[in-house]
Amino acid sequence: MDSYLIQVNGRGDHAPMRDVHLKSTGNTISPGKAKGRKPRWAVRASEMSKKTFNPVRAIVDTMKVEPNPKKSMISLSLGDPTVFGNLPTNDEVTRAVKEVLDSGRWNGYAPSVGYQSCREAVAAYYNCPEAPLKAQDVILTSGCSQAIELALAVLANPGQNILVPRPGFSLYKTLALSMGIEVKLYNLLPEKAWEIDLEHLESLVDEKTACLIMNNPSNPCGSVFSKSHLQEILAVASRQCVPILADEIYGDMVFADCKFEPIATLSTNVPILSCGGLAKRWLVPGWRMGWILIHDRRDIFGNEIRDGLVRLSQRILGPCTLVQGALERILRRTPPEFYHNTLSILKSNADLCYAALSAIPGLQPVRPSGAMYLMVEIEMEHFPEFENDVEFTERLISEQSVFCLPASCFEYPNFFRVVITMPEEMILEACSRIQEFCEMHYQGAEGAQDLECDK
Amino acid sequence: MDSYLIQVNGRGDHAPMRDVHLKSTGNTISPGKAKGRKPRWAVRASEMSKKTFNPVRAIVDTMKVEPNPKKSMISLSLGDPTVFGNLPTNDEVTRAVKEVLDSGRWNGYAPSVGYQSCREAVAAYYNCPEAPLKAQDVILTSGCSQAIELALAVLANPGQNILVPRPGFSLYKTLALSMGIEVKLYNLLPEKAWEIDLEHLESLVDEKTACLIMNNPSNPCGSVFSKSHLQEILAVASRQCVPILADEIYGDMVFADCKFEPIATLSTNVPILSCGGLAKRWLVPGWRMGWILIHDRRDIFGNEIRDGLVRLSQRILGPCTLVQGALERILRRTPPEFYHNTLSILKSNADLCYAALSAIPGLQPVRPSGAMYLMVEIEMEHFPEFENDVEFTERLISEQSVFCLPASCFEYPNFFRVVITMPEEMILEACSRIQEFCEMHYQGAEGAQDLECDK
Repeated sequence: MDSYLIQVNGRGDHAPMRDVHLKSTGNTISPGKAKGRKPRWAVRASEMSKKTFNPVRAIVDTMKVEPNPKKSMISLSLGDPTVFGNLPTNDEVTRAVKEVLDSGRWNGYAPSVGYQSCREAVAAYYNCPEAPLKAQDVILTSGCSQAIELALAVLANPGQNILVPRPGFSLYKTLALSMGIEVKLYNLLPEKAWEIDLEHLESLVDEKTACLIMNNPSNPCGSVFSKSHLQEILAVASRQCVPILADEIYGDMVFADCKFEPIATLSTNVPILSCGGLAKRWLVPGWRMGWILIHDRRDIFGNEIRDGLVRLSQRILGPCTLVQGALERILRRTPPEFYHNTLSILKSNADLCYAALSAIPGLQPVRPSGAMYLMVEIEMEHFPEFENDVEFTERLISEQSVFCLPASCFEYPNFFRVVITMPEEMILEACSRIQEFCEMHYQGAEGAQDLECDK
Repeated sequence: MDSYLIQVNGRGDHAPMRDVHLKSTGNTISPGKAKGRKPRWAVRASEMSKKTFNPVRAIVDTMKVEPNPKKSMISLSLGDPTVFGNLPTNDEVTRAVKEVLDSGRWNGYAPSVGYQSCREAVAAYYNCPEAPLKAQDVILTSGCSQAIELALAVLANPGQNILVPRPGFSLYKTLALSMGIEVKLYNLLPEKAWEIDLEHLESLVDEKTACLIMNNPSNPCGSVFSKSHLQEILAVASRQCVPILADEIYGDMVFADCKFEPIATLSTNVPILSCGGLAKRWLVPGWRMGWILIHDRRDIFGNEIRDGLVRLSQRILGPCTLVQGALERILRRTPPEFYHNTLSILKSNADLCYAALSAIPGLQPVRPSGAMYLMVEIEMEHFPEFENDVEFTERLISEQSVFCLPASCFEYPNFFRVVITMPEEMILEACSRIQEFCEMHYQGAEGAQDLECDK
């Protein structure tokens, strides 16, 4: 990494460059901009910006992704339900924002944690006897990403650690590392529908553990935890006295045969920050409306965590007021058919995709129960041409113009993630191309022998 | 500050509490959650959340603010031009967002730095031969607050320092301290229309100085720097090799008799991050649309700072796409009359307010040239009843129901700040109440003597 040196005028001396930014973080004592010495330009990006690292970008940006020019590109990589146009938001949602625009009353600054009336609307929507919520238990944020950022920032200090699922959404690690927080990965078990390996989870807890991040329904797995499994997770948290950061952005997005249980409804003692938002269920991820629900029935977080969240929210002053103003109407008036319709499309796509991929030699999809994803194991021993999932998915692009995220992006090599939000015909086309690709490259035990014999 | 201790069951031992969060930041080595010991709940807010401190809130929240029940409250404290209803945004602005809603094409995730087309629109709007801009020089942010946060976060490491105006907007300090960055205050000179004390500024630079924050037009001063003064500031930055973070959110909001010069148009070498947004000029602060313009004609920031900004933007994924989608139309089609009208109202209010306050014994207003504020000196020696500006403004509330921010909020005691966005009749009423208040409490040299003689 070069420094950017510019001499301000011709009289510069030739003393060794003093790198203003790097020196100050180290232990060496650097001389002041002493009168006799000429300052030089040496602007470096901060350590924090260097530590802010998105593994998905890092992997995807280095992939050789030249699609096959003879086939149109099908990208199943983005967790954005709006990209194919087949899952528009509901008219009520749009109308609610238009009403806000027409009123002209929502253009000013909101309190940094959101308008009281909007916090009340969210509290009322999620309130239930098992996990009561009031307006002061809700912090509105600029998307669920900021909800997770604030929750992490209030719970953990640099040098502490957090427990993060593997496979799991990459943002947890990106945020934690940028804040100097260590990440400890606990295993999810594909053979148990991606339940948490509880023994592994508990073995990771130490005196520096600041919180346990759990994500249900899961990105990238599409799994949904049962009530009893959630109770087991809570038992670990309770025994170890570790608060929970629950990423529930896919809350209620589960298929007909199972039920979403907000984890806070199952605990009377574990303090929980539940992060959610409009992005996925209301199909408007770009609107950046998220929230933190504070569940603290035993007053373990107390005022300290609440005050901390309020203070942290003052850094950038909350989400767009146009969406805040529309929130109550969106939550109250979106018709139940809208949610049902989204889920029945997702369920039907999941079934279609699961069935098609199950029939392909060398692939082992895991059946999803919710969210918008499906994970597929690559039996790498049958694809000896490819080093790993990254190479497999690279070649899938260059030969078939189908782009799936290699699960290395989620710390889980030898799988890839398929998004199931696209129209049916596109799923069929994508699966048939994946099949063609696998048949081309598959080497069964016999196949391998055949090849040997041929020679 | 108490800890929140809860025993999970009745078998808790009585070992001293281990504060998980605090210990890990110190140097003491704390024991693990050893098998034989019972963990206890001890969740503490992070150090960072405790360091995130808004001085305005801290001062205002402790003020005794019971207004006089016989007089309606007039609050001149908030820098929000929308609160009085007399300064609505333009119809084109609202229509642009409605069009975006109707299109249904702007609901998905944008790139974290904003859509390319929107970055192009901002670049085109601010591009000029003296300071050319392209799309890649623009980072869209969730309001100007996030623009300042990202700019600071990329330029400075913990342990470094930044130069901040006094009086100045409190967010700079709030953000810096939360990041562990030291704040060095440089003086503005009220007797020179709030120009920077350049000698003082330069004396503060040392080897740990990461950037110079300047704010033009100024909150809280309402001042506008001349071209020659900006050149003097640039000369200091250039001589000392310190990059500039220019808070230009009030850019172009200057009265007819003076001109706003973006500082980047006057420099060919100093690297500048200019922060702006829709909030003030387009009168929609709640919409949270801000931006950073990267000016780096000598490639001093280079790719490092650009990449750093991109990486940092990935933490919360940029501003609301509804406003992003409307940006090009807002910038292109808002009619010039709209801006002129806003400014002529502000100018007329400024004149009215300045004239009225100038006539009040014991007050010394400083005439503003732009933005939405006016600073007033309190000749404290004539108000011996009051300890300071906080007490003065407290009593102004309890007696006259007029709320102005004490300038202690801006690190500048013995002044207060008046917002000049309210309707004319409200200014007149407020000024007349301030006059009544001051006449009641003023003690002139003679007055004081008179009192002596009476006894």
